[in-house]
Amino acid sequence: MKVLITGGAGFLGQRLARELLARGELKGPDGQPQKITELVLLDVVAASGFSDSRVRAEVGDIAERSVLERVIDERTSVIFHLAAIVSGQAEADFELGMRINLDASRLLLETCRLRGHRPRVVFTSSVAVYGGDMPDVVRNDTALNPQSSYGTQKAIAELLLNDYTRRGFVDGRVLRLPTISVRPGKPNAAASSFASGIIREPLNGEAAVCPVTGGTRLWLLSPRQAIACLIAGLELDAAALGHQRALNLPGISVSVDEMVAALREVAGEAVVKRIQWQPDPRIEKIVGSWPGRWDTTRAEQLGLSGEKSFADVIRSYIEDEHIQPV
Amino acid sequence: MKVLITGGAGFLGQRLARELLARGELKGPDGQPQKITELVLLDVVAASGFSDSRVRAEVGDIAERSVLERVIDERTSVIFHLAAIVSGQAEADFELGMRINLDASRLLLETCRLRGHRPRVVFTSSVAVYGGDMPDVVRNDTALNPQSSYGTQKAIAELLLNDYTRRGFVDGRVLRLPTISVRPGKPNAAASSFASGIIREPLNGEAAVCPVTGGTRLWLLSPRQAIACLIAGLELDAAALGHQRALNLPGISVSVDEMVAALREVAGEAVVKRIQWQPDPRIEKIVGSWPGRWDTTRAEQLGLSGEKSFADVIRSYIEDEHIQPV
Repeated sequence: MKVLITGGAGFLGQRLARELLARGELKGPDGQPQKITELVLLDVVAASGFSDSRVRAEVGDIAERSVLERVIDERTSVIFHLAAIVSGQAEADFELGMRINLDASRLLLETCRLRGHRPRVVFTSSVAVYGGDMPDVVRNDTALNPQSSYGTQKAIAELLLNDYTRRGFVDGRVLRLPTISVRPGKPNAAASSFASGIIREPLNGEAAVCPVTGGTRLWLLSPRQAIACLIAGLELDAAALGHQRALNLPGISVSVDEMVAALREVAGEAVVKRIQWQPDPRIEKIVGSWPGRWDTTRAEQLGLSGEKSFADVIRSYIEDEHIQPV
Repeated sequence: MKVLITGGAGFLGQRLARELLARGELKGPDGQPQKITELVLLDVVAASGFSDSRVRAEVGDIAERSVLERVIDERTSVIFHLAAIVSGQAEADFELGMRINLDASRLLLETCRLRGHRPRVVFTSSVAVYGGDMPDVVRNDTALNPQSSYGTQKAIAELLLNDYTRRGFVDGRVLRLPTISVRPGKPNAAASSFASGIIREPLNGEAAVCPVTGGTRLWLLSPRQAIACLIAGLELDAAALGHQRALNLPGISVSVDEMVAALREVAGEAVVKRIQWQPDPRIEKIVGSWPGRWDTTRAEQLGLSGEKSFADVIRSYIEDEHIQPV
């Protein structure tokens, strides 16, 4: 089995690659395990840190047809399409967001259609496909009404993936990721970057800026459970999924105040005091347009799961990243 | 005021052009009437039959950037984007549907964005954006869940138009047209072609094939009211529309049996007897995925209206097309 991860040098891509290499196999479309013989990591920079002979790091622009033709062949039976321009950047640079989030996603599906081998494709979408006047609880079939260019591009890619699946060009699965927290590393251009920063930086002894008010509600999933859901989503039986291929993943709905309380519970008041509250209307507007409460029954019925509490999320971060809170 | 109609040689395009020329003016964004000084009709064949000096017929492929740059300039303040590949054809020829229904729509919006003059754009969408498990009554904000490539392409163009409007690149309005009935002329490749054929052909003394069962429910609007709604949609105050630019137009919900009964009421039993019932599973599947009952409160509140009965629709067809039922 040959597996492709786009965005393979990114945070989720690298973590997914390590998990796939450790497992060594994935269920095939028939539910039987198949050995992973080749793992291609495509990104604009080389994925590094892998000394495994199954790994091939490919560098290229995913919006170029020739690059996709190079990394997808008839033996590429599994594709995790994670490459994306994040929300804040897609809003700031309209053309770049359209090129990567829309054009490249379509080109990936087109490459599969023209190859004709009907691979399974897992595509990561986002809470940002929802917006406007929303019900109190967002369900799997709540209308998409994005209020950002990022959300629009993700919603369009979802529609494409559904149609390519209906026509038998690919066997697609869309997983709408909650905001991933706690991400290790540095802040990024995503409007939701603070959702990791206000936990990560204080645990490292550094100050962190929170650009939204404490009442702001977020829908969060740890990197550990996100990876588990990506793999479980790929292995789902196509027949159980039916025609509508998008699933809201089971995250935790928490307010920023509740996140801070969980940090206090796990690491103490001195750590919490490193959070500085500086509301930023631009960030508040984007994040405030995302829903905070979710009915994820469908994903749970299909066997996908998240954490039980945000304190558990912080603990899994400390464990996975070998953090020594200071 | 310079006005562009794409699909300007088509049935709705020609009729809209005649109505605009007769009116001679349209409300500007400020609500004040402005004279129409130039009316550009773009299509793959030349729009003919106009001897008006305001009309300019342009022939070109709407999916070519140079063609759109030729017909849209900084003075093109109103665009009616009607050009499309119909449902049956978009399902049969995937690449053609994507090229015209998706690529050309996006290119039109891009041309406006790069010109930077923020024209008003009326885009015609379709009932085919809905599908799957639907509520009994479809509302303006029911989730889009297309079950055809045509519906997918229209839904994507709606999302693009909303985002281009939100960002201030255009001032867009999406009108989701009911099935237009009664269309004059010949059958076409649309799955809904019979919805005109079973009225038009019998009135002309010809046999017509009905490919669906009598219980099939359709949502219909006459050409006369469709044109009135296109113009009213263009003239709507942007502030009254808000962020969500798509409107389900007020059609009539009727079963095919009710359509036949209306034909009997208007033209008699001998005419009705010319309908031949030959169910076609391919057509039934596509049409059956469209919803039949609608809540169009929002459009009505904004002043858009349809007919009161299907018998009225038949009568307006007989009147507008100067038909002598035989």
